[in-house]
Amino acid sequence: MPARLALVAGEILAVLRARRPHIHCITNSVAQAYTANALLAIGAVPSMTTSPDEIAAFAGSADALLVNLGTLEPERRAVIRTAIEAAAAHDRPWLLDPVFIDRAPTRASFAQDLATLGPAHIRGNAGEIAALAPGEDLRALAARLETVVAATGETDVVTNGERLVGIANGHPLMARVTAMGCAGAAITAAFLTVAEDHFEAAGAAMLALGVAGEIAAETARGPGSFATAYLDALYGLEAPELAARARIDTSFAGGTP
Amino acid sequence: MPARLALVAGEILAVLRARRPHIHCITNSVAQAYTANALLAIGAVPSMTTSPDEIAAFAGSADALLVNLGTLEPERRAVIRTAIEAAAAHDRPWLLDPVFIDRAPTRASFAQDLATLGPAHIRGNAGEIAALAPGEDLRALAARLETVVAATGETDVVTNGERLVGIANGHPLMARVTAMGCAGAAITAAFLTVAEDHFEAAGAAMLALGVAGEIAAETARGPGSFATAYLDALYGLEAPELAARARIDTSFAGGTP
Amino acid sequence: MPARLALVAGEILAVLRARRPHIHCITNSVAQAYTANALLAIGAVPSMTTSPDEIAAFAGSADALLVNLGTLEPERRAVIRTAIEAAAAHDRPWLLDPVFIDRAPTRASFAQDLATLGPAHIRGNAGEIAALAPGEDLRALAARLETVVAATGETDVVTNGERLVGIANGHPLMARVTAMGCAGAAITAAFLTVAEDHFEAAGAAMLALGVAGEIAAETARGPGSFATAYLDALYGLEAPELAARARIDTSFAGGTP
Repeated sequence: MPARLALVAGEILAVLRARRPHIHCITNSVAQAYTANALLAIGAVPSMTTSPDEIAAFAGSADALLVNLGTLEPERRAVIRTAIEAAAAHDRPWLLDPVFIDRAPTRASFAQDLATLGPAHIRGNAGEIAALAPGEDLRALAARLETVVAATGETDVVTNGERLVGIANGHPLMARVTAMGCAGAAITAAFLTVAEDHFEAAGAAMLALGVAGEIAAETARGPGSFATAYLDALYGLEAPELAARARIDTSFAGGTP
Repeated sequence: MPARLALVAGEILAVLRARRPHIHCITNSVAQAYTANALLAIGAVPSMTTSPDEIAAFAGSADALLVNLGTLEPERRAVIRTAIEAAAAHDRPWLLDPVFIDRAPTRASFAQDLATLGPAHIRGNAGEIAALAPGEDLRALAARLETVVAATGETDVVTNGERLVGIANGHPLMARVTAMGCAGAAITAAFLTVAEDHFEAAGAAMLALGVAGEIAAETARGPGSFATAYLDALYGLEAPELAARARIDTSFAGGTP
Repeated sequence: MPARLALVAGEILAVLRARRPHIHCITNSVAQAYTANALLAIGAVPSMTTSPDEIAAFAGSADALLVNLGTLEPERRAVIRTAIEAAAAHDRPWLLDPVFIDRAPTRASFAQDLATLGPAHIRGNAGEIAALAPGEDLRALAARLETVVAATGETDVVTNGERLVGIANGHPLMARVTAMGCAGAAITAAFLTVAEDHFEAAGAAMLALGVAGEIAAETARGPGSFATAYLDALYGLEAPELAARARIDTSFAGGTP
């Protein structure tokens, strides 16, 4: 699996950079610019509108959709279902990022509703995943929703209900830059457009994001230069670095996180 | 023309940095911060509100107005005419940037309406200009609307209906940073406040933006450090660099793009 | 006072980095990302929602609240009182940053109302403070409102109505980066969570922000690299640098600015 995941990530990157998939992002205003820059750096093309009379045109013509619940204003909330329907009508994957749903009860129940609408992938930190499915095992959650679920943390865990993998790449400075997780979810959405096996695509994205963080940290003098270097690292990321740096945590191979 | 455009650009930059014009920007949330930073870097002063009870005060007291149609929420759309009227009442130039109107039909028809309200300058990429005036020649469009039109691309083309110039400066990394074009339009609005000949002002801005991109690319390791270096380059840009680097495409001198 | 303020700033920084206070920011969309990154760099944790059904949960569970009046859309304006009440109900300090109220009359009268609701600190530039309290002496304003007031400028002045201090640290490039003042106010809110003496906390924050600017300027090649280096400087800021660089203007010690 370790070697395979690095190989898959390298292949996805190459295809993605050639195809330049269009990712429509319904995301919070704090994260918009960095998310757009991360997508451009990896080779994808972002769009961001949440205008009600435009959302179907943009989400329907995109190759994937990101639904991020950060700073969930009523206007943004109102267009999410329309966007999901447009993506579904064109058989395009969409990713749910339930940002901070552990902090606002109204956001949590909304996320629980969205989770039943067929996301290709759900990606959150441990607290967010726990708020989405209180007390439920990660693997059971993925199996019940028939999707791929990832819980980010020191070791990121990805499962499709059957398979499960832990990825221990990354760097502490990633937690000191706003929108780093939001941008990571957008890049993961781009990976979903390339590989039909969404479990592998999600794991490969997690690996690529973590390795880019490690590369960026080598030249950073703090979170400002790290955020800049991270975009540079995404842009220059290649298969050999992924293979050399992959730290796949095999202790998760048969268990639950 | 080449030598003259570089000269004009250098002179505009010097005056702009002394006067520090105030540019009010109605622009999309993705582009706001980078646009504000680009204006500050070049020597102008940005404001960004789209609040209905504030827009007339800000747009009316500014030296120029930018109308950018990216992520066109109803709230932003609703204040655009008020802002344009405030600018017109004070005889201040305004610039139309019809972002992504080729992607959303409602946005295209709105842009077509705005284009008849007397913008000093319209600036878009080839797809956006084609959506604004399907099948119409760039020069004919400028002549019909009695404005200056620019189509950005590998070679940027600027015309006032009579004169036409192509500017081949710039760098591919400019397409890998979000809001780069939006920020360029804002800087162009600042140039319009200095030179009464808006054709020359628009051409000079295009040259300055392209040269700044080339300077930034020399030290960039990817799109992250490029975006940072571009702001530094705008801040430090001087006449001699403009003259030395200008690549004016004279094959456009008498023709149409 | 000089030595003491540097000492206080160093102690607050150490406690803040250990406690990681949560600062809820109601702030303008231009400033959101840089403000969040500045808070993360200094060691605090930001949240930014202005959604009406979420604001009480976020503001009520935060350690401090920032109320920034930039680009004051009706939606944002509508939730400010709810947020202030939630902060007050939990006895948490809130800071008022009356951005550009000297440019929009409706914003000024709103700021004047908010100023009577018990902010722990009000922080603006000279024009903003003058619009908040036309003709009123800074010290008298602080005494009347029973709060700490800071007027930023080449020398920043902080007063609680009795004590008054001028801090001459900082760098001209700070005025060339958007949201620098907004981010500074957010960091000041974080300082208020640590020190019960809000006059000292506000002065210490001003000193820390100015010293970080000076450190950042030493490696910057323009406003782009300065903005990046400033985040790095906030992240790495330590007590000895504060003590060595503090420029406390004692000419203000007994007078008014």
